[in-house]
Amino acid sequence: MLKEKIALHLAGPTPIPPQVAAAMTMPMINHRSDTFSVLCKEVASKLEALFRTQEQVYVLASSGSSGWETAMVNFVPAAVKVLNVIIGDFGERWSKANAELGYEVENLRYASGTAAKAADIATILEKNQGSIKAVCFQHNETSTGVSNPVKEIAAEAAKYGALSLVDGVSSVGALPLHMDEWGIDVAFTGSQKTLMCPPGLMIIAASKRAWAQADEAHTPKFYFNLQEYRKNYDKGQTPQTPAISLYYGLQAALQMLENEGWDKVQERHHLMGEMSRAGIKATGLKLLCQEEEFASDTLTAVIVPDEVKAATFLKTAKDSFGVIYAAGQGKELKERIFRIGHMGYMTPNDVLVALAAVENSLAAVGYDIQPGKAVAAAQEVWLRDIRQH
Amino acid sequence: MLKEKIALHLAGPTPIPPQVAAAMTMPMINHRSDTFSVLCKEVASKLEALFRTQEQVYVLASSGSSGWETAMVNFVPAAVKVLNVIIGDFGERWSKANAELGYEVENLRYASGTAAKAADIATILEKNQGSIKAVCFQHNETSTGVSNPVKEIAAEAAKYGALSLVDGVSSVGALPLHMDEWGIDVAFTGSQKTLMCPPGLMIIAASKRAWAQADEAHTPKFYFNLQEYRKNYDKGQTPQTPAISLYYGLQAALQMLENEGWDKVQERHHLMGEMSRAGIKATGLKLLCQEEEFASDTLTAVIVPDEVKAATFLKTAKDSFGVIYAAGQGKELKERIFRIGHMGYMTPNDVLVALAAVENSLAAVGYDIQPGKAVAAAQEVWLRDIRQH
Amino acid sequence: MLKEKIALHLAGPTPIPPQVAAAMTMPMINHRSDTFSVLCKEVASKLEALFRTQEQVYVLASSGSSGWETAMVNFVPAAVKVLNVIIGDFGERWSKANAELGYEVENLRYASGTAAKAADIATILEKNQGSIKAVCFQHNETSTGVSNPVKEIAAEAAKYGALSLVDGVSSVGALPLHMDEWGIDVAFTGSQKTLMCPPGLMIIAASKRAWAQADEAHTPKFYFNLQEYRKNYDKGQTPQTPAISLYYGLQAALQMLENEGWDKVQERHHLMGEMSRAGIKATGLKLLCQEEEFASDTLTAVIVPDEVKAATFLKTAKDSFGVIYAAGQGKELKERIFRIGHMGYMTPNDVLVALAAVENSLAAVGYDIQPGKAVAAAQEVWLRDIRQH
Amino acid sequence: MLKEKIALHLAGPTPIPPQVAAAMTMPMINHRSDTFSVLCKEVASKLEALFRTQEQVYVLASSGSSGWETAMVNFVPAAVKVLNVIIGDFGERWSKANAELGYEVENLRYASGTAAKAADIATILEKNQGSIKAVCFQHNETSTGVSNPVKEIAAEAAKYGALSLVDGVSSVGALPLHMDEWGIDVAFTGSQKTLMCPPGLMIIAASKRAWAQADEAHTPKFYFNLQEYRKNYDKGQTPQTPAISLYYGLQAALQMLENEGWDKVQERHHLMGEMSRAGIKATGLKLLCQEEEFASDTLTAVIVPDEVKAATFLKTAKDSFGVIYAAGQGKELKERIFRIGHMGYMTPNDVLVALAAVENSLAAVGYDIQPGKAVAAAQEVWLRDIRQH
Repeated sequence: MLKEKIALHLAGPTPIPPQVAAAMTMPMINHRSDTFSVLCKEVASKLEALFRTQEQVYVLASSGSSGWETAMVNFVPAAVKVLNVIIGDFGERWSKANAELGYEVENLRYASGTAAKAADIATILEKNQGSIKAVCFQHNETSTGVSNPVKEIAAEAAKYGALSLVDGVSSVGALPLHMDEWGIDVAFTGSQKTLMCPPGLMIIAASKRAWAQADEAHTPKFYFNLQEYRKNYDKGQTPQTPAISLYYGLQAALQMLENEGWDKVQERHHLMGEMSRAGIKATGLKLLCQEEEFASDTLTAVIVPDEVKAATFLKTAKDSFGVIYAAGQGKELKERIFRIGHMGYMTPNDVLVALAAVENSLAAVGYDIQPGKAVAAAQEVWLRDIRQH
Repeated sequence: MLKEKIALHLAGPTPIPPQVAAAMTMPMINHRSDTFSVLCKEVASKLEALFRTQEQVYVLASSGSSGWETAMVNFVPAAVKVLNVIIGDFGERWSKANAELGYEVENLRYASGTAAKAADIATILEKNQGSIKAVCFQHNETSTGVSNPVKEIAAEAAKYGALSLVDGVSSVGALPLHMDEWGIDVAFTGSQKTLMCPPGLMIIAASKRAWAQADEAHTPKFYFNLQEYRKNYDKGQTPQTPAISLYYGLQAALQMLENEGWDKVQERHHLMGEMSRAGIKATGLKLLCQEEEFASDTLTAVIVPDEVKAATFLKTAKDSFGVIYAAGQGKELKERIFRIGHMGYMTPNDVLVALAAVENSLAAVGYDIQPGKAVAAAQEVWLRDIRQH
Repeated sequence: MLKEKIALHLAGPTPIPPQVAAAMTMPMINHRSDTFSVLCKEVASKLEALFRTQEQVYVLASSGSSGWETAMVNFVPAAVKVLNVIIGDFGERWSKANAELGYEVENLRYASGTAAKAADIATILEKNQGSIKAVCFQHNETSTGVSNPVKEIAAEAAKYGALSLVDGVSSVGALPLHMDEWGIDVAFTGSQKTLMCPPGLMIIAASKRAWAQADEAHTPKFYFNLQEYRKNYDKGQTPQTPAISLYYGLQAALQMLENEGWDKVQERHHLMGEMSRAGIKATGLKLLCQEEEFASDTLTAVIVPDEVKAATFLKTAKDSFGVIYAAGQGKELKERIFRIGHMGYMTPNDVLVALAAVENSLAAVGYDIQPGKAVAAAQEVWLRDIRQH
Repeated sequence: MLKEKIALHLAGPTPIPPQVAAAMTMPMINHRSDTFSVLCKEVASKLEALFRTQEQVYVLASSGSSGWETAMVNFVPAAVKVLNVIIGDFGERWSKANAELGYEVENLRYASGTAAKAADIATILEKNQGSIKAVCFQHNETSTGVSNPVKEIAAEAAKYGALSLVDGVSSVGALPLHMDEWGIDVAFTGSQKTLMCPPGLMIIAASKRAWAQADEAHTPKFYFNLQEYRKNYDKGQTPQTPAISLYYGLQAALQMLENEGWDKVQERHHLMGEMSRAGIKATGLKLLCQEEEFASDTLTAVIVPDEVKAATFLKTAKDSFGVIYAAGQGKELKERIFRIGHMGYMTPNDVLVALAAVENSLAAVGYDIQPGKAVAAAQEVWLRDIRQH
């Protein structure tokens, strides 16, 4: 098999469009010049549409996970108490990061495959009587394929005077996220998942309420100090040298998404999510997320049947059927699930490929399955969608 | 839908791997330098493996269709009689080209969807008692998805003292073609179909027998004069300025094919051919080529059902399901068939996508079809193939 | 030394801008689709501005030298008498091509370094009393760095009823060429010299007078048959598969030239020509072209001093000073001159580099020269130019 | 003028080779796969050669300036006293960063254009009797074009039990830096200056002595926690998602430098430094750095003559002569100097261009200068260098 042509269905990085690849080859420019300012401002303007916000959106030269630290050290005073809502491994990691950064962390944990409940959060906030200063949670938990009820959680946080900090790394742009309307205080994402770019950029925005508290956030910081980004925003510059080639790539990617239409991008992801779930169900396999309402439209976690070894299945999918899925993440899930990424530079056709390889790989490793049902079910969902539009 | 991500199932050009695209961006070099010689010789060496020949293989800066003219003016004396075997539109076009080039053309025509029979050719050659100096035919007729019995035809031509000139534009590399062993006199291809490159290169080789007659081929010629290529071969140069960027691309593409294995490349195409046919049959649609033995492994022509308008179907496939097929070619077939290209930078996963879109597009335009069968049948073929290896 | 960063001052190919390289990586498209038509028409429209013509301009997938054959077989009847004006090796090669194509060739030769004189041509045309059907000549003879008086020669050809066929391979775009106004019948160029693209495209246009004679040009032809290009022009297609990646590159290159301004491009080349000549003269070296009026603004040929071996000089320039010049071309000039290309993606700064390396390389091989004068003289020319604008 | 072809002589970013640009377009891969591990380890291995160290070298997804924070929070205990040696604006910024990160900062300042003296540092360390835990300084101060005596300073730091932390952002690879031999405790650089890549990667290594103190460095940290990089090193992974495209670019760039030879790269930069200084002196202009021993070989700062306005000069250089220099940095130097970057993907030819534009731009804005002397002097230096090798 042509090993270079492989369908990448990771949880990220996701495939790069040729247009983005080409944009990244543009010659270097002075990042203190008007040429860069124009680029910087155009990217910011498109990102504001993406975040549905009228606040400034900043682009930092770092991976998506730097969003955790950046959200905290800029807006949450050092050493205060914060609530980490954990529905999967990325939630765990943020909680751990907060502890390392010196915060007093209270954790609210849910079983894998479950979404958080706003009421649970309200209960904890109530009990803590204002001592919890921030609620930290994922919009979309990439390790389990579950999306949290962001709007409801943000509302409870606001009610109790806590900031709502949202990790949108595998959601922003692909899943509905109305930063201003929903009262989200900080939201951030990375370049390498829904945004069709290579990793290396972290993108973040904060509400007026968050900014009002920024001066009290005395946690030592330098590189991730957003005050400096804020100062440089109007002239279209960044305090540190920006990752220019990735900036050009992001510009090209955002242009493609804008051309498609910000809403249409979300509709496409919703269709891909529905197709994935319908396909998996049609095979008789089980989804990790049992609640359709909270099922992620960017990634689907599937329970590996007892008779099958996850690693063998993944290797067969890659070597024999040209598809790379994400393995389970974290001790509990590593052997128990595999995950199908369906975000970014993907269309429903990619979902068909991913589903066919699930069936064929399972069959090839000896699992009793009749190939064809998954794709058929997914085709049906797609067809219905087309007929409705 | 993300319009930039579309599955290109044309009869050519075919998709370009990122590795080839990157190679094409290398800086210009002196085409009279050692640097180019090394490139030129490496490409030639890989092409000789591809053509299964010990003769020299030349790369010209021109489209694949220049192969017709180049084969003729270099090896067939001006104005002599030649036999054009026509099983589709490309056969017609070569015949027409030969007439324009001043040859006396005898045409042997077959119904669309049919392969030529070596016996028919023998009959004509016999009847003409040595006056026919060349037999011109397609290895793979791209307009109908039919492959000719090259070996048998070449044998007959040889028997009657005629050169066998083979248009391998949509076959070389992907379908078995043993130039030396089968006694083929001239074979040529283009860069943009099975070879995973953009159009712009024509690649050609000739047998010792053909070269022995070259001096008698007095047809006026300049640009396509292979004698000049022959003179420059040993120093790794070309008489005219080579298309350097495409040369770099070709080098990268051939390297990928060599890595996969020359035989494996053909096995992959055979699998894609089988999957395509099994899938189409499973839907109840009819293939244009009724003889499995001669069905093309690089392209499948499908008869459009009476109830469906070809153009509407094609538009739906593109706009709603993100797949571009080739329309029927030539007056007779334009409305009657559509064609699914499955060659070059493609894997069986691409065939699944192409098949699903056939079903869904037909369903979307109101044709009575139950989506899912085509992909299921193709998956089964693939699974069987994996199990056998 | 960083061997990848070398200043390419060949007679072609010339350096490729990153923007052109990036454009060439765009995904393949259907060359029978509207997407290609739009590209095709936009390129044609810019080329018409470049050729200063209201006629159609065609882009063929072939090297520049195919222009000789294309001009002849489309517009000049087979076997008639033509006049080849030869002021260098490219003139010789066209004459040879014409002979191979079956024309009766009359040659008018000039000493290397000399331009043709319209009066000489008139004399021959007069003597031949209308039997000469075409006058074939270079606008810019790349082997000697001499530009011919195109306008005057075209006028004489017209007067005597002969077509004027102009090889503009190293001139179109960079040197003034007013196709319509000067009454040129056929002009052509290649993609790889003044047009900042890799080789692989030949671009050609013909006057109404030429087209009026096209039907009588019965020379056998297929690939280079411009009638087919003419038929396909209005729908934005090409009869043969176009070299799509190069087409995208050409579009990007023409856009850059248009942005600069068609006239400004020529002014830049004129400045580079003047700087080159002033620099060479300042060193005491001799130019091959002694008449400033006819000196080429795209390439400067310099006489190698007697004490110096051309090959040693060229090797030193490349290995020690990072500059590649073109060697002398043809037996007579191979050891006698070297040539400095200054066209396409070049600025006066590239001329400074080229000149410094001339001095330094000569000095390094033991020639008695005081480095610095060449660049100083060139700087002065540039400074004067800036002051005048 | 062709505005896209401009000579970038910034202090960074520096020009990108086409080979690096092409490498950045490679398809995304799983950063937890063997494919990435191989890439990661190869890059690390080349970087260890570059740093002249047997310690591990880490690549982070961030700009070069993150090196300040990373060096501190990983190896210097929170809130202790540190010495910042300041010879220019980057020194000031590191000092400021240290203060923001909560360290007690003692500053040792020198006049612009001057290098630090190891003896001064010894005096301060002596006086502080072991309370200063780290000496922070630039190897090459990009704002003034002065290189510090790294070896001597590191030796004093070691003597007094302080760590030597070296900002090598504009030096590593281009200037001699023997990390292990010179006893440097932490050294770091960025991808966008000497390393021929776009910005976005920070590269850092630490000595055994530094690592031995790492556990006591309790400054809150998450993203820049090198312990995590250390844990992942042997499996060829990074704790955060790596900037894959830049990683590919860095691999290509390091391969080019290795091909040239690590020592040869430094020799090239030394030659460019000598040429720049000789050229500037020949014009009668003054260098900011008066001590040849400490003059930077990657960047030359030149004092703008009193009669000339810096901004006007820079604009003329860019618009009329196609060269972009770096302006002066920081309040004191903004109007007083301009800087010529000569590092990374540059050769002595680039220095010639930069020098010619200095003369011509000054002349064009009315300064009394005779163009030609700078380039002549630089040519002479180059010629002498060639003759000696």
